[in-house]
Amino acid sequence: MSRADVIVVGAGISGLTAAWRLAQAGKRVRVLEANPRVGGRTLNYRFATGEVVEVGGQWVGPTQQRILGLLAELGLETFPLWNQGDNLTLFGGKLKPYRGTIPRFAPHVLLDVLQAQLRLDRLARQIPLDDPSRHPRALEWDRISFAEWIRRALKTAHGRQVMELVSGAVFAAAPHELSFLHVLFYVRSGTNLDTLLGVQDGAQQDRIVGGSQRISEELAARLGDAVRLDEPVRALRQDASGVELITDSGSHSAARAIFAVPPTQLLRITQAPLLPGWRDQLLQRLPQGAVVKCMALYATPFWRANGQSGQATSERGPVRLTFDNSVPGSPRGVLMGFIEGDEARQWSASSAESRRAVVLECFARYFGAAALQPLDYVDKCWADEPFARGCYAALFPAGLWTGGAARLREPLGRLHFAGTETATRWMGYFDGAVEAGERAAAEVLQQL
Amino acid sequence: MSRADVIVVGAGISGLTAAWRLAQAGKRVRVLEANPRVGGRTLNYRFATGEVVEVGGQWVGPTQQRILGLLAELGLETFPLWNQGDNLTLFGGKLKPYRGTIPRFAPHVLLDVLQAQLRLDRLARQIPLDDPSRHPRALEWDRISFAEWIRRALKTAHGRQVMELVSGAVFAAAPHELSFLHVLFYVRSGTNLDTLLGVQDGAQQDRIVGGSQRISEELAARLGDAVRLDEPVRALRQDASGVELITDSGSHSAARAIFAVPPTQLLRITQAPLLPGWRDQLLQRLPQGAVVKCMALYATPFWRANGQSGQATSERGPVRLTFDNSVPGSPRGVLMGFIEGDEARQWSASSAESRRAVVLECFARYFGAAALQPLDYVDKCWADEPFARGCYAALFPAGLWTGGAARLREPLGRLHFAGTETATRWMGYFDGAVEAGERAAAEVLQQL
Repeated sequence: MSRADVIVVGAGISGLTAAWRLAQAGKRVRVLEANPRVGGRTLNYRFATGEVVEVGGQWVGPTQQRILGLLAELGLETFPLWNQGDNLTLFGGKLKPYRGTIPRFAPHVLLDVLQAQLRLDRLARQIPLDDPSRHPRALEWDRISFAEWIRRALKTAHGRQVMELVSGAVFAAAPHELSFLHVLFYVRSGTNLDTLLGVQDGAQQDRIVGGSQRISEELAARLGDAVRLDEPVRALRQDASGVELITDSGSHSAARAIFAVPPTQLLRITQAPLLPGWRDQLLQRLPQGAVVKCMALYATPFWRANGQSGQATSERGPVRLTFDNSVPGSPRGVLMGFIEGDEARQWSASSAESRRAVVLECFARYFGAAALQPLDYVDKCWADEPFARGCYAALFPAGLWTGGAARLREPLGRLHFAGTETATRWMGYFDGAVEAGERAAAEVLQQL
Repeated sequence: MSRADVIVVGAGISGLTAAWRLAQAGKRVRVLEANPRVGGRTLNYRFATGEVVEVGGQWVGPTQQRILGLLAELGLETFPLWNQGDNLTLFGGKLKPYRGTIPRFAPHVLLDVLQAQLRLDRLARQIPLDDPSRHPRALEWDRISFAEWIRRALKTAHGRQVMELVSGAVFAAAPHELSFLHVLFYVRSGTNLDTLLGVQDGAQQDRIVGGSQRISEELAARLGDAVRLDEPVRALRQDASGVELITDSGSHSAARAIFAVPPTQLLRITQAPLLPGWRDQLLQRLPQGAVVKCMALYATPFWRANGQSGQATSERGPVRLTFDNSVPGSPRGVLMGFIEGDEARQWSASSAESRRAVVLECFARYFGAAALQPLDYVDKCWADEPFARGCYAALFPAGLWTGGAARLREPLGRLHFAGTETATRWMGYFDGAVEAGERAAAEVLQQL
């Protein structure tokens, strides 16, 4: 095969952005994608009735300048998530309506949660985004889990439950899986907690017309036959003369390679020379979160008629968080729900039928018996996805940042690293994927 | 190639025990070992002057009935670790001699440490070894790290430092990397804390004549040409008719396979069908500990002449724990030291020369300037070892046991799982490796 200047591994938003910037700079690029499709952790699904929804990542929001810029460049448009009517919260066994981001808790619970939020935001503002371990209190904060901080900082059981829900919603993980320093980093990386959690003015504000996989499809269209699907990289070699990547179908050579894959995936590739031990050890400690994203299609968005937004947060699982994911222009309605963490792993292991049943039961608990009669249903267990093995992103457990995790974006010889997990701003989001892809492309351009 | 009844992947103690039991039962076995040697996480090293020491696991002790039985069966003998004279402890900037397991702390520190030890032992006695998550308080204990428990349970800074040293010595990891439930499990799995930490009557009591790698060499000799070296398994397939394992040199078929490798290694093998998502997610959360094992050879064991045992524990790194690893019959002396956790990853990344210099500096700090003049020096960075990628064993972080980790020893179709991480008694030790190998062999025999 002809030799490229750069091979990008992974045709998600990060890898394709890197490849497109390199192509724009006149470099010969090739993108090797393991799946028979582009998009990485974004994935469109079309219901039989025509509505396109996303079973992977879907949102963009304010302050995400890089992805918003890319959307404009690609001619893609956004529309707001449906956000009218009452939200619902099920806590203390009672279902209650509320407006905005924070439910109408009892005053002492509200105080507890707001104080915690203020403390998180205040501490987060001090975290150096390029390397959280440079903060003077980094060791202290990196040695405690988010769970330990929650137990210390929140005074009410209900308040602690709310923070667990926050952990699930933002990380697809339980608080004990996360370094507190990482949570502070993530809050600053995503502006502040209100922005991370919010719909209006927040990270869940807007959707992409045609579905978020369109971002990768548009980039791939521009790259043409440089993008090779069904090419899982099984082995890599590098030496003074270049990089060679072995896929199931053959060998690909280039001067440099960019890996734009979830961090753990690099462990699954046979390496010559081997990654340095310290780096392999860090990657052994960067698991993906776990989420099942579930959607039911209904003849109408019946909850709207009841004055409801379709947004619910709940103390009862497995679906603890829902949204109205209906598509403009269609008379039909879509309810969307997330199953996270341990529950995601458990329900991934169950039959599709029982998962559908329990999800609809959750929807009915929040929005009434009409939710039990969908026209259609779809879900996606991201732990089962062959080349992601989890979502939304990698979890940084206690000790990882102060153990050198910032060095995971450092090149190793001719290998460069992109993917949203290597971003400083909006890590874990589309915007971070773009930042990481552009940074890796710039690194490579300096070397070629 | 001819088809075997069973293929065992990994020629460490666990895999070879499994293979030998199956061969004894008349089955046709094949062992595929990725390295050019047997032994797994045991590895002998011969100094130029003839002394054989171990740069991997080395000890056996009382209550380890399975490995002691295997040693007898193989005709291997043991000898006690040198354990005469004063131990040393460097804490609070002062080097002090002591006898036994626990240094002569100030009374309030001693009280603090002993109370913690009693609490650990008392709680550990209740843990079900087959599945710690069955304990009524499992969720509570699995959601806190060992670090959080230490901060709560110990009242003195010095006492907390001692527990951190315990964590390094037993797990090659910092307390924040470990679920408190796992620590309780591990203490019971290894009898109690005194046994885990002790030399006399403890897990560090005895060594194997000729070095611990002899265990695997003896087993391999009995298995003859069934053991194939330099055969890293890169891919596995299973279907109704059997299992196929692809190595760099060819394909191997059998009715069943036993994986006797560190848990993370399974992720590095291309699988068809893929592991279930929940299981892949658990394996993403089971990193190996990190240790550099260091030894210096001297003309004489000069510390003995000073009335010292060669055993030191220290608040200062990178070597915080030492032993006299001299070999009977030689006039020369061997000092051995461990670098653990973050320090192991850092020093693995440094030059061999600078690592040697800092280790000898540590030895001199404890045993005097004579330690700066060795005849020879050797160390082993286990994070760099291609098919271990860490030692001593896998770390179970918060949430893993209650997330279903006991199921990691369940077969997946025709795949069975051994390795010390799947043991109930003495997990992480040779004894657990034997238990796991024999249990996996029994499982397979039931199916053949």
